[in-house]
Amino acid sequence: MSVDPYMRVRMAATLPNYPSWELGAVMDGSAIGVVEASGDGSLAEGTVVSHRYGWRDHALVPLTEVRPIAVDPAIPLTAHLDVLGMTGLTAYVGLRDVARLQPGEDVWVSGAAGAVGAACGQLARLLGAGRVIGSAGSPEKVRQLTDELGYDAAFDYHVPELTAALLEVAPAGIDVYFDNVGDDHLAAALDVIRPHGRIVVCGAINQYNQLGERPGPHNLINVLTQRLRVEGFTVREHLASYEAFVERASEWMRQGRLTSAVTVAEGLDHAVHAFREMLRGANRGKMLVRVSEDP
Amino acid sequence: MSVDPYMRVRMAATLPNYPSWELGAVMDGSAIGVVEASGDGSLAEGTVVSHRYGWRDHALVPLTEVRPIAVDPAIPLTAHLDVLGMTGLTAYVGLRDVARLQPGEDVWVSGAAGAVGAACGQLARLLGAGRVIGSAGSPEKVRQLTDELGYDAAFDYHVPELTAALLEVAPAGIDVYFDNVGDDHLAAALDVIRPHGRIVVCGAINQYNQLGERPGPHNLINVLTQRLRVEGFTVREHLASYEAFVERASEWMRQGRLTSAVTVAEGLDHAVHAFREMLRGANRGKMLVRVSEDP
Repeated sequence: MSVDPYMRVRMAATLPNYPSWELGAVMDGSAIGVVEASGDGSLAEGTVVSHRYGWRDHALVPLTEVRPIAVDPAIPLTAHLDVLGMTGLTAYVGLRDVARLQPGEDVWVSGAAGAVGAACGQLARLLGAGRVIGSAGSPEKVRQLTDELGYDAAFDYHVPELTAALLEVAPAGIDVYFDNVGDDHLAAALDVIRPHGRIVVCGAINQYNQLGERPGPHNLINVLTQRLRVEGFTVREHLASYEAFVERASEWMRQGRLTSAVTVAEGLDHAVHAFREMLRGANRGKMLVRVSEDP
Repeated sequence: MSVDPYMRVRMAATLPNYPSWELGAVMDGSAIGVVEASGDGSLAEGTVVSHRYGWRDHALVPLTEVRPIAVDPAIPLTAHLDVLGMTGLTAYVGLRDVARLQPGEDVWVSGAAGAVGAACGQLARLLGAGRVIGSAGSPEKVRQLTDELGYDAAFDYHVPELTAALLEVAPAGIDVYFDNVGDDHLAAALDVIRPHGRIVVCGAINQYNQLGERPGPHNLINVLTQRLRVEGFTVREHLASYEAFVERASEWMRQGRLTSAVTVAEGLDHAVHAFREMLRGANRGKMLVRVSEDP
């Protein structure tokens, strides 16, 4: 099962107008399971499926809410919770449909070693981006970005001046900023983005644990002076793109052009710990919890 | 000649990446003039033209930079500096091309009694908007918005809580916010805008006189939770739409469905005063300066 930043938001009314979990209800989320029995009979016992009933070891799932997975020895099963799942689709539609990334354009992705960020760097490259720049929170992650995840350049955001650090690796600016962080990262993007740039607002992990509201970037006026587009989205509204995406991305994986980086915690008992570790950035790539033995 | 808020920005480096006037250079801007002589001979003496050489009583203008005006007794000449000029085009492309206003959608326009705002209310209505709401800075202006400028509802922004005032006239929220002001107005729009709403960033007059940068809205996170699009634009990049616009808008004027509201100061000597009055909001509709007798 998958543990994701958005779950933090669903736990409390920290963000307005975001669907919350009811207190006392079982949490849910993306997961992969094996059919043990099917009342309908149309799904054979042993079929591997993805579904939305995470945070539990057994689930009774309506037939309309499972999707059989075509098991492929060239593709690790966990990839279906990562670059071939909602994580990959988030990065894909964010770059393709929201940013409308054009060939040769330069992209900065924050939170680049996180799940969506890891998919973003690779997908930006596959979609024809120019320079792809990532930022993350440790020297090891920064190395991973350039060594494993297809980023052209990367930097550690623990610096006195984020804009200066960004300009060092992107002296000519950027065309697209894929925002997983918000706050000072958004302000740095506004500082260096070129005219007609796009800012894709995918997440704001810095704000998820903070109950109070906080000032926006001091330089938001650049939206006017640079004629920028700032757009928020949620992958839930782009599910119609999923089938075509998973076909395309599976082919990229078989060609070795797209990889899935996951951190796996063992056992449902460790799910809360894994979730908290993910929020503080201890994971590299997608954070998953193995609920039972792999099929 | 026209005096406009953007001129304040061109006077100093208050906004990054915005073209400034050189110190000591003659200012310029939209104006209407009469041809006194033409070296080329293709423009008859007495032809009324619009051009970009404002802030002077005579100008030597290249032929490529004048546009003859079809003088129409049903249309006041000053309208060509207002709803039929860049002011009108700004409102039109902002609503049609940037907001992509759909029939029935509810719109809020700030600075609604200003030049662009006055055009915005009427054009939103003509483009099929649902409820059109305006805000302005005095009871007289608020009355003008509903009585003369086609707004369905209006309010004075001198209130303790802008969001509450907006919700009073737009209890169900808005789909489009046309921002001429920025700051607390932008924050109020973010508070009440519905999912997939669009915020058109046209101006930020509150910030033009302030040299320091200032915090953005505390609730910018709503861009994510409501899947909003925030987009800045400048009319300079939409001039290709002008001819079709002026034809359409002239017809609306002849039908009495679009009016031009102007405040006229007399004499070039009063241009600086008029400009400052406009910045503090003393004008209703477009602020103009009559440089010489009308033709």
